[in-house]
Amino acid sequence: MELAELIIAGDRRAIARGISLVESQAPAARELVAALYPHAGRAHIVGITGAPGVGKSTLVNALALDYRRRGARVGIVAVDPSSPFSGGAILGDRIRMRDLAGDPGVFVRSMASRGNLGGLARATVDAVTVLDAAGFETILVETVGAGQAEVEIAQAAHTVAVVQVPGMGDDIQAIKAGLLEIADVLVVNKGDQDGADQAVAVLEAMLSLAPPRVGPSGDAWTPPVLKAIATQGAGIAPLAQAIAEHAAYLERSGQGQQNDQARAARELHQAVREALWERFLAQAGSELAAAVQRVRDRQIDPYTAAEQLLRDAEP
Amino acid sequence: MELAELIIAGDRRAIARGISLVESQAPAARELVAALYPHAGRAHIVGITGAPGVGKSTLVNALALDYRRRGARVGIVAVDPSSPFSGGAILGDRIRMRDLAGDPGVFVRSMASRGNLGGLARATVDAVTVLDAAGFETILVETVGAGQAEVEIAQAAHTVAVVQVPGMGDDIQAIKAGLLEIADVLVVNKGDQDGADQAVAVLEAMLSLAPPRVGPSGDAWTPPVLKAIATQGAGIAPLAQAIAEHAAYLERSGQGQQNDQARAARELHQAVREALWERFLAQAGSELAAAVQRVRDRQIDPYTAAEQLLRDAEP
Repeated sequence: MELAELIIAGDRRAIARGISLVESQAPAARELVAALYPHAGRAHIVGITGAPGVGKSTLVNALALDYRRRGARVGIVAVDPSSPFSGGAILGDRIRMRDLAGDPGVFVRSMASRGNLGGLARATVDAVTVLDAAGFETILVETVGAGQAEVEIAQAAHTVAVVQVPGMGDDIQAIKAGLLEIADVLVVNKGDQDGADQAVAVLEAMLSLAPPRVGPSGDAWTPPVLKAIATQGAGIAPLAQAIAEHAAYLERSGQGQQNDQARAARELHQAVREALWERFLAQAGSELAAAVQRVRDRQIDPYTAAEQLLRDAEP
Repeated sequence: MELAELIIAGDRRAIARGISLVESQAPAARELVAALYPHAGRAHIVGITGAPGVGKSTLVNALALDYRRRGARVGIVAVDPSSPFSGGAILGDRIRMRDLAGDPGVFVRSMASRGNLGGLARATVDAVTVLDAAGFETILVETVGAGQAEVEIAQAAHTVAVVQVPGMGDDIQAIKAGLLEIADVLVVNKGDQDGADQAVAVLEAMLSLAPPRVGPSGDAWTPPVLKAIATQGAGIAPLAQAIAEHAAYLERSGQGQQNDQARAARELHQAVREALWERFLAQAGSELAAAVQRVRDRQIDPYTAAEQLLRDAEP
């Protein structure tokens, strides 16, 4: 496939076309991923997540500039699972352009959900494969919030940084219980605001209550809690350092290999589920529509109706 | 099934056992749902959602008391998708007990995710079926946030009330774009705090930008924005009124029938997907594990591996 070859060679227009293709989830997107997959797997993928307004984009920008100073090529995928209605993705792109435009060692791409969260998670994973195969050494994936799509995207990252801000008060505990579990590094951004030290203390206290994370080798990882002021570039180098330390931990402890195994199983299982459903739909006749009517009229429950449909479809 | 008969007769211990059964997602849970499903479909199901700390539990409590005063039997399902780690579900139950304990016309149940969001959405829908078959006329389903699980739970409700608080500032737009789309009624709780009127104005402005919602009959529904102070019981009767008006709109416009059709299709499709995957797993041999290794080693991509597995499984 010519497009795949151009992407592997690092051609920027081909990379952009490739990401558009996987975003469309057209049949040709699978062929592209098939051609690129064996060339990917070298990048370190960093998920950066947190609620709207915590300054994720600014932080990702600053982090990308830090990596650039050390000569690493950086891919950025900014995922906006809110509706197209908000236009956030496009705005984010424009802001980023000012700092990173014209640098051939950086590739920035925003992705919006267009109402299909499941498709977004898959398209994001495929976009990361495109950038990975194109030779970007570090790929930053920025996502909003703690929804299921974000958890899936985080599962595809090697290192997850969760960004917070001071002053979330008592709600911090309720909001962050789910996010804490996926965090490898915690960042309190806007660290010059009131309550920053308290937020760090609260997060450290919560982490001390969580079960320790021990890799296959017996080595443990305790997520560090860092302060940053992204708008001033403060705390960015320590964040890059913490991410590098987590990468080293993954390698050293065997946890990275275990994660890769789990990721492969998850991706394959998901692909099988989708393929099974597509096959079923392709051969489903009027029985499916008739069964929907019977469920709607409460003549039958969905589980029993599903079993009957599958039994009838048996050869 | 004896348990189903007791539930349909309104036996409280049977209802509790039935919900525990569907929460466990054990095989017997499907039989129970199958027996109850034809007896459900009469309740009005109200989803109540919003970020942590907006006072959802207090609002749900007050709303339940309001329904009770008019003699309706009320079921409450409080869903906590955050990790078991937080223990929020149990705390919520205890707070509620003070006001509603001992009233046989109310049934309260909390459900936690225990790490399985997909399973939680399904268990919640099944728990609502139990309460519906048991004759509760109104079922309030309280959920946190705007994640995928919440969207699924909201899709199972007839009317969705989204709860906000004043003072979320500029973030309100970014946070709420997704939630606005699922809201049939908006509530600004803590309406005595600074910025409450501004929050109402912002929400009304955002709604005015959204596409109008027109039912099959041509009738339109514009989500009302209400102020409430749940701790004082203020604004609760107007909220109950708005929910009743929405129910009447669903009936009048044909939108309710259309939603029921979409809900039946979604539930059946989901059940078919799960059944297909279970069948595949039951007959998958060592090929599946071998394919995971090949994906992990990047010898093959997940999509192609899935296609090969299904081709090999053909009769």
